[in-house]
Amino acid sequence: MKNILIIGCGLLGSSLLRRIQKKKIANKIFIYEKSKKNIRKIKRLKLPGIILKKLEDGVKKSDLIILCTPMSEYKNLILKMNNFLLPKTIITDVGSSKIESSKIIKKFLRKDVNWTQSHPIAGSEVSGPENGKQNLFENKWCVLIKEKNTKKNHVIKLSNFWKKVGSKVVIMSPDRHDKIFSITSHLPHLIAYNLVKSAQDFEKMQKYDLIKYSAGGLRDFSRIAASNEIMWRDIFFNNKKNISKAIDLFIRNLHSFKKDINEKNNQSILKKLINTKKVRTKIIKLKQDINKPDFGRN
Amino acid sequence: MKNILIIGCGLLGSSLLRRIQKKKIANKIFIYEKSKKNIRKIKRLKLPGIILKKLEDGVKKSDLIILCTPMSEYKNLILKMNNFLLPKTIITDVGSSKIESSKIIKKFLRKDVNWTQSHPIAGSEVSGPENGKQNLFENKWCVLIKEKNTKKNHVIKLSNFWKKVGSKVVIMSPDRHDKIFSITSHLPHLIAYNLVKSAQDFEKMQKYDLIKYSAGGLRDFSRIAASNEIMWRDIFFNNKKNISKAIDLFIRNLHSFKKDINEKNNQSILKKLINTKKVRTKIIKLKQDINKPDFGRN
Repeated sequence: MKNILIIGCGLLGSSLLRRIQKKKIANKIFIYEKSKKNIRKIKRLKLPGIILKKLEDGVKKSDLIILCTPMSEYKNLILKMNNFLLPKTIITDVGSSKIESSKIIKKFLRKDVNWTQSHPIAGSEVSGPENGKQNLFENKWCVLIKEKNTKKNHVIKLSNFWKKVGSKVVIMSPDRHDKIFSITSHLPHLIAYNLVKSAQDFEKMQKYDLIKYSAGGLRDFSRIAASNEIMWRDIFFNNKKNISKAIDLFIRNLHSFKKDINEKNNQSILKKLINTKKVRTKIIKLKQDINKPDFGRN
Repeated sequence: MKNILIIGCGLLGSSLLRRIQKKKIANKIFIYEKSKKNIRKIKRLKLPGIILKKLEDGVKKSDLIILCTPMSEYKNLILKMNNFLLPKTIITDVGSSKIESSKIIKKFLRKDVNWTQSHPIAGSEVSGPENGKQNLFENKWCVLIKEKNTKKNHVIKLSNFWKKVGSKVVIMSPDRHDKIFSITSHLPHLIAYNLVKSAQDFEKMQKYDLIKYSAGGLRDFSRIAASNEIMWRDIFFNNKKNISKAIDLFIRNLHSFKKDINEKNNQSILKKLINTKKVRTKIIKLKQDINKPDFGRN
């Protein structure tokens, strides 16, 4: 790559920035960021890259453009970029759901240019350029999305880029992507938000001061539920069909758990509580987590 | 305390053992453990304390008896101890739900002896004496249960014991305890188990290999859902009334979330996603967690 343009310099954008500089992946890095607060942070942190005043200046000069904004910004950004894009330019993003953004891209992006979607499975509950890290993507999966009109040489170049960034690349369709992540990521976040909301409701109803006893489980969910609300609203809205199905499955299973508890059905509940351990064993084996007990953080 | 008897030497029992020795809280420590596997581990780890062959030997000689077994063992243990207990002996436990165990205690324990329930809010998803740590209870809450027949001097002595162990002590009724922890601990664990079960079901239905993409949220739940099944079955059964209500509240809220998503109700969902952050802020302020982002563990 000669020049790379990063649009949106929050947690993911700034992590890419740091990594691109460290590994010398580009000659020039351009940054387009609309938040003045973030621009001040980028300057204060002395992050590498040229901060653009006009988006078009970077669009024309870049070989790779990466959108790291909330997905609800894509449409506006496409309309701003359209007149300045070149057919050889590789365009991608880091959004967490793919079917809906694929529709937006197809509808608004100039027909002679190509956008190959990416989804690096990396992040945290914090946001902003001050929280980025150059090794955020190290040994993490990055999903590349393949559709009918996807250009093979763009996939190859993009795949090489993500590998340089440290990721392991896997290619799948938008449909498969959105189904898988509705269960492994979107539902867990929704559940975490919902649990914290339920605890708040309960506290109001009972007038108990219960948050101080949150170390027994609620604490860990509250961390996940502290994630960026714009990003998660976009994900929930964009993958609503799959998330809706995931919620239904979750509620069905919860009713079954409730039945076991109310009937004190020993055999049925133990089967559930033991079976779930298999997933944990698999997660450790696949190196998605380490096999070290968690006693809370001090 | 002169002598302390620990019944059940798993994660919590062995942590107490280590702490009691380190802080010289007792003259003698007796251990009663029915699992031969655990006894072998205790010996191999050279944990302090005298391993009893007969429970009665320790019961007669101890000033403080602490049950650290699953709650479903209490009845049998009470029947074994009854003939050897002295009225001055302080008896307690570390169980996670209190109304049901209070009933078992009232029904089976000899009437002239007293049992004051404790619940230290400490633990992990792992079990067994090999995972215990002397500082497990450091700066953690320990709830002492006060009922009509509770002896004031037993509460004072027990409270002093837990403070020596490193805990902060709070006193409440079994009813309040079981309500609070149904939300802050029991529901979160149930939800974690239920999410992992739902992921398993989805994987079977879709024939997708999705566990390897669990870093986006599922991973953290799978850790919680790897907790001891006997302990959690007992908690779910013993606190079934409150947990059942908590499930209902949770499902009501989940339906509301689903409605927001399906209707793309921007205002309503953002309110939910922003409000939950207040709980996080409170948890950090109350030192129930640290304000450090989590990027996964390597």
